[in-house]
Amino acid sequence: MENFSNSQRAEVLVQALPYIQKYTGRTVVIKYGGNAMINPELKQQVMEDIILLWLVGVKVVLVHGGGPEVSGLMKSLGKKPEFINGLRVTDKETVEIVQMVLAGKINKTLVGLLENKGGRAVGLSGLDDRLIEAKCKDPALGFVGEVTRVNTEIINDLLERKYIPVISTIACGPEGEVFNINGDTAAACVAGALRAERLIILTDTAGILRDPSDSSTIISEITVPEAQELIKDGTISGGMIPKAECCIRAINEGVKKVIIMDGRIHHSILIELLTDEGAGTMFK
Amino acid sequence: MENFSNSQRAEVLVQALPYIQKYTGRTVVIKYGGNAMINPELKQQVMEDIILLWLVGVKVVLVHGGGPEVSGLMKSLGKKPEFINGLRVTDKETVEIVQMVLAGKINKTLVGLLENKGGRAVGLSGLDDRLIEAKCKDPALGFVGEVTRVNTEIINDLLERKYIPVISTIACGPEGEVFNINGDTAAACVAGALRAERLIILTDTAGILRDPSDSSTIISEITVPEAQELIKDGTISGGMIPKAECCIRAINEGVKKVIIMDGRIHHSILIELLTDEGAGTMFK
Amino acid sequence: MENFSNSQRAEVLVQALPYIQKYTGRTVVIKYGGNAMINPELKQQVMEDIILLWLVGVKVVLVHGGGPEVSGLMKSLGKKPEFINGLRVTDKETVEIVQMVLAGKINKTLVGLLENKGGRAVGLSGLDDRLIEAKCKDPALGFVGEVTRVNTEIINDLLERKYIPVISTIACGPEGEVFNINGDTAAACVAGALRAERLIILTDTAGILRDPSDSSTIISEITVPEAQELIKDGTISGGMIPKAECCIRAINEGVKKVIIMDGRIHHSILIELLTDEGAGTMFK
Amino acid sequence: MENFSNSQRAEVLVQALPYIQKYTGRTVVIKYGGNAMINPELKQQVMEDIILLWLVGVKVVLVHGGGPEVSGLMKSLGKKPEFINGLRVTDKETVEIVQMVLAGKINKTLVGLLENKGGRAVGLSGLDDRLIEAKCKDPALGFVGEVTRVNTEIINDLLERKYIPVISTIACGPEGEVFNINGDTAAACVAGALRAERLIILTDTAGILRDPSDSSTIISEITVPEAQELIKDGTISGGMIPKAECCIRAINEGVKKVIIMDGRIHHSILIELLTDEGAGTMFK
Amino acid sequence: MENFSNSQRAEVLVQALPYIQKYTGRTVVIKYGGNAMINPELKQQVMEDIILLWLVGVKVVLVHGGGPEVSGLMKSLGKKPEFINGLRVTDKETVEIVQMVLAGKINKTLVGLLENKGGRAVGLSGLDDRLIEAKCKDPALGFVGEVTRVNTEIINDLLERKYIPVISTIACGPEGEVFNINGDTAAACVAGALRAERLIILTDTAGILRDPSDSSTIISEITVPEAQELIKDGTISGGMIPKAECCIRAINEGVKKVIIMDGRIHHSILIELLTDEGAGTMFK
Amino acid sequence: MENFSNSQRAEVLVQALPYIQKYTGRTVVIKYGGNAMINPELKQQVMEDIILLWLVGVKVVLVHGGGPEVSGLMKSLGKKPEFINGLRVTDKETVEIVQMVLAGKINKTLVGLLENKGGRAVGLSGLDDRLIEAKCKDPALGFVGEVTRVNTEIINDLLERKYIPVISTIACGPEGEVFNINGDTAAACVAGALRAERLIILTDTAGILRDPSDSSTIISEITVPEAQELIKDGTISGGMIPKAECCIRAINEGVKKVIIMDGRIHHSILIELLTDEGAGTMFK
Repeated sequence: MENFSNSQRAEVLVQALPYIQKYTGRTVVIKYGGNAMINPELKQQVMEDIILLWLVGVKVVLVHGGGPEVSGLMKSLGKKPEFINGLRVTDKETVEIVQMVLAGKINKTLVGLLENKGGRAVGLSGLDDRLIEAKCKDPALGFVGEVTRVNTEIINDLLERKYIPVISTIACGPEGEVFNINGDTAAACVAGALRAERLIILTDTAGILRDPSDSSTIISEITVPEAQELIKDGTISGGMIPKAECCIRAINEGVKKVIIMDGRIHHSILIELLTDEGAGTMFK
Repeated sequence: MENFSNSQRAEVLVQALPYIQKYTGRTVVIKYGGNAMINPELKQQVMEDIILLWLVGVKVVLVHGGGPEVSGLMKSLGKKPEFINGLRVTDKETVEIVQMVLAGKINKTLVGLLENKGGRAVGLSGLDDRLIEAKCKDPALGFVGEVTRVNTEIINDLLERKYIPVISTIACGPEGEVFNINGDTAAACVAGALRAERLIILTDTAGILRDPSDSSTIISEITVPEAQELIKDGTISGGMIPKAECCIRAINEGVKKVIIMDGRIHHSILIELLTDEGAGTMFK
Repeated sequence: MENFSNSQRAEVLVQALPYIQKYTGRTVVIKYGGNAMINPELKQQVMEDIILLWLVGVKVVLVHGGGPEVSGLMKSLGKKPEFINGLRVTDKETVEIVQMVLAGKINKTLVGLLENKGGRAVGLSGLDDRLIEAKCKDPALGFVGEVTRVNTEIINDLLERKYIPVISTIACGPEGEVFNINGDTAAACVAGALRAERLIILTDTAGILRDPSDSSTIISEITVPEAQELIKDGTISGGMIPKAECCIRAINEGVKKVIIMDGRIHHSILIELLTDEGAGTMFK
Repeated sequence: MENFSNSQRAEVLVQALPYIQKYTGRTVVIKYGGNAMINPELKQQVMEDIILLWLVGVKVVLVHGGGPEVSGLMKSLGKKPEFINGLRVTDKETVEIVQMVLAGKINKTLVGLLENKGGRAVGLSGLDDRLIEAKCKDPALGFVGEVTRVNTEIINDLLERKYIPVISTIACGPEGEVFNINGDTAAACVAGALRAERLIILTDTAGILRDPSDSSTIISEITVPEAQELIKDGTISGGMIPKAECCIRAINEGVKKVIIMDGRIHHSILIELLTDEGAGTMFK
Repeated sequence: MENFSNSQRAEVLVQALPYIQKYTGRTVVIKYGGNAMINPELKQQVMEDIILLWLVGVKVVLVHGGGPEVSGLMKSLGKKPEFINGLRVTDKETVEIVQMVLAGKINKTLVGLLENKGGRAVGLSGLDDRLIEAKCKDPALGFVGEVTRVNTEIINDLLERKYIPVISTIACGPEGEVFNINGDTAAACVAGALRAERLIILTDTAGILRDPSDSSTIISEITVPEAQELIKDGTISGGMIPKAECCIRAINEGVKKVIIMDGRIHHSILIELLTDEGAGTMFK
Repeated sequence: MENFSNSQRAEVLVQALPYIQKYTGRTVVIKYGGNAMINPELKQQVMEDIILLWLVGVKVVLVHGGGPEVSGLMKSLGKKPEFINGLRVTDKETVEIVQMVLAGKINKTLVGLLENKGGRAVGLSGLDDRLIEAKCKDPALGFVGEVTRVNTEIINDLLERKYIPVISTIACGPEGEVFNINGDTAAACVAGALRAERLIILTDTAGILRDPSDSSTIISEITVPEAQELIKDGTISGGMIPKAECCIRAINEGVKKVIIMDGRIHHSILIELLTDEGAGTMFK
């Protein structure tokens, strides 16, 4: 890469022009998770992609979870993570751990990374200005919340002043409780409330496959009815079901396009937005 | 209290008028710590005091530390807290714990409490928009930082939009490191950078005493030279020395008045600002 | 009262919190008249109440009449006040007296009182920026006007810059005439045009009574249809009829709640707005 | 006049262009008094002149007194006007009459006249937002004040929103008293505080004359030192002395030019500002 | 004219008041062409009229063509102007000449004239910010365009900052071509897009005549249906047809009133707007 | 170029990040001329470079001349271009040709090109809002001007609204004359008045050479005193002298850095600003 000439560099920059023009001034919500959050090189690249988009005038909102790190701290503290239907059973102590890991460790570390690359980032949680409100999803799960409302005022205030909001997915309850909420759903709700141009969900899969065993059967574009059909007929199955449902929800709440993106690919966000190629499955 | 008549209530409100007028539109920084942060009733009262000041137009900035809770989590994780001259030895793992406890647990919990009382609060750390920059204080202490710069832009942006900024005292370093910093010093630096009208440092003492064994010898007002004299002659000693030095620093950086306040007294903040009484020692 | 401790004072302030939050940023129109305008102590208290509301962010608009003082000056000038159905017969000379007394004497004196208590007040009449337009009500009454239009722009300009508008109830006619208008009606029209949260009409009565001879039969809340019923069946009678009709008009023009308040009670405005008690009859 | 052709009219308008350009956006304070305030035709013309200036973008501030009408009402009320060195002896009752006549009758009537000609005017007194502050001039005179301070904020707020401020010359004292103040002095202080481009003082004289008995000896331009010389040598004498001193004060406080103008001449304000002719004496 | 007295001048200015009030803050589009653009004295007067309107707060937009000068330069360059149905056949070379003459020579010269009279003018063409978009009208005519869209943003930006936009009537095509467009139509489209209060089309005729040979048969006001009738019955004929159609188009696109004005009359614009007389035919 | 993979493209974009951050929000003035203005491919690339800089937040101002095209039209019109010391002798007819070619043809064509690439451009000349004022340089040269003042208000207004100002280098004189001015000097004056971060002068040379016959002797950076030395000792000679003097002037008027850039190199502007390479000579 180092051997590119400067005129080649200029050429590449210029070829990105029409793509930049398309997104400048628009809101793009990125749900950050999986491998892209663990692999240090991919992590650096996601940060670089965000800074570049921000510099060319895209309003980027970063939403993150952090399940593995929560389980890690739980184990260090001698608590055994337990799940029902993929949802973490969350007692009082656990939700405190979730809060510390998401809003304290991961959120501020991401903010720091963006700052170090020259961005201006401010970390938020669902508690700040009651950004994400939730209610108890199921008493059996404890402090697991279902999003009831997103208050976008603080996000818009920060975007207007050219900050990059970084949001950790915990929510506040009506009685002052804190809820652990699903990161993908939270991102979908935030993107919907912001009427975002794009929601990009970084995953560790290639996208939705017609044949899960064959990554060449990737479905590059899909409509909501088609996706609902594929859930029914079992093509979309397992952990992809909640992700697909999130995408459908986001589309229904007003997001223009939602992409389940392969976060294992280098600079996948930039490639998606600033070239004619895309990695993953786009919901319209 | 319940038996007060409404006309008595009205009378009290009206008598607070001149005090309210004095502070409306001014910036008051409150360093929150000690007993007032642990005792649930005092905690509720501090929150109520803040909300009331905010409603009558005071620009309140809440700065908090959280040493005991940091030590608590360290112990749960099998780490032994260690101190040199009262400063916590902070290795990489410890600074991560500090970050989680301060920016994750305490900060967001305080935000939640203020929200539940009807305020609009946003939690920040020294990492957000590089609010507090620091450098290594002493290699022997590890990630303990000395404040080098406070960037007030994000605080002012939030104050202008009528949010209450809640700030946890960690700082960012030049290489992207996170530093553990002394809460009182951080509050003094923030108050100085904001040219605050008042810095109130909540403590578990009555204030500065001429005779430490006799709380009736409280010094209610003191100038910077007098304080420096008392440090020299040993009247101010032990843990009160760094607190007094913080106050001196804040005054020198442009804060109008700094108060070491007895946080064990109910509604001590309101009483200080909205009556003619004061609890503690005021530096001018 | 002097013997209250400061912690008791703090307690009272804090208990007012939820009430303050309810009205901050809202518009409250106060029709000032009767005893509360004559008794010096009550007058001071009304001013204090207004300043306090103003400081906690309520947009207060003060509307005043001044019938007794008009009659007083008329008599000093050798003119005999004359009324038809409670309305002052107003010849050219009389309307000039009304203008002098209301817009000159009472208005500016009220402005001065508010200023001296630390408020920022600006006096207006219905002539300034054509704030209140009227037409002749009845040729037999001379320059008695019926409000045809309220132009709120100057009020809103002043409220936006944090002034307290004080309005004297004279109006301008289509040909440049000045009209004497009923103070309660003017207040109702102003409150309606401002879509006020509350209109408070200070009177010298306890409110609307089921049995006029028994002040314990006060009706604390009433709907518009109920009030219309009570007018029909004679429960509301005499001078209370036009007051009740004003309240109905204000509600119909968009004011949320209208209160006929007993202005003889100390700090009745604060008690109404900042406690759970109320003195008088509230129209919804 | 009616017989002018429209092309002649156009020609006149166009010839006013350079004069209009000179004053657009600038502040002109007009002290209104004397004959121009009494003669109905002149009064109409002053109003027309003000509206025209306002429409072409001049920031006009109208300051008025009203001595004769005050004396009139005093007499009707059986009080004998009394003067010491040309200053009205003003007891409590008298200052109330002054307030009623100036702030109630004259001020609002002028506002009404401007409104009827299509202007947007708001009446103020020295009490509104403490616009003019004064102290007692001489205990022997009672409530006669000496201006100590002009607070221009409310004037600037109104000018910015394109209103014409109309100011009656009473002032507020430190203890809430009302003071009767000299109109010319008040106008000079207001013009000075506003750093006005012009202060125009309408009088019933031709201006300053070298030979008071010969109106052809008018001095059309004069500097401050020259004027001081003429006071010394007696050329300026009698009632012209305080007027000249006002002009000197205004120049010293920052007004660019001050004119003692013959208000008996039709449209003298327009002629002064929009032609190359001027009526009266200009101080530089 | 020189012999008018200043009081006569003042009288004329004052009599213009109600007319000025009617147009201040409103948008008036002037299509400048014909004799008024060639005769130096008329040209000066049009500039003066525009500056006066601008100073009294009218938002003036000047639209110009320049056919004769285009033909002039063509001839100097050895090209023969050719017309089909009154439309100039415009090859690539010709459209370049049109661009140079209109956007370079005439536009900037007009800007210079307005500046020299004290105005603040900025010249635009249909290419700036794609102000006027067009498509090919007829391949036989070459680069003659039909307006498809007017983008008013740059005009509004300039008007808001108090500049006088001067627009030359060339347009941009979808492929980056430049089109020669009819000046009257362009003015009508611009006026329509701005929802102008008035469109004034300066011509070399008296207006629409019932009997073209008798200028006393001028129709001073006409409605759209009436005009369409007169086109049908031949009363409006020849070169007046496209002008009348422009007026109809402008009215249909939202302009309040359109005037075909006799530009040979001195100060015809001022007379139209600031007196009760009008020269030409007004479409409603 | 076409064969680059998208991940390679992303890599290039990301490597441009630090350069983009350096210039975002800063003003860069580009003097456009020479080969880069004639060669169609280079022309496209300059436009692309400008659009890219504009999109990443650089405030780009394009200044252009057009000598060859002026000479071209002169010849077509049978006029013989004549020069004294490299300055065009400019009679009345010639300055009109200059105006047409620069402000009409070249300016609007450049605006059109930028628009077609997605930019928002507005063409200006030195006449618009009197942007460039000049006086006669030498009567022997006729209408050749020397810049006396640059009024940046219209440029700043356009930059603030995110337009790209394109400026043709003619100037207005005190009497309304139009002056032909040297393009490089005009660009230097404009850049100085804007306190630009960079002035880039596109030329047809490699930059300043120590040995004019050997392009490998290029001087990549030079200070003002060094440049003055090289002029004295003859190293800088011929047509490079006025260019060097322009650069010196710009630096002296407050431009941070000025570059004489080889406009024959593809995307030389982007390479200069967005890579670590530079083509030409930079004055500091």
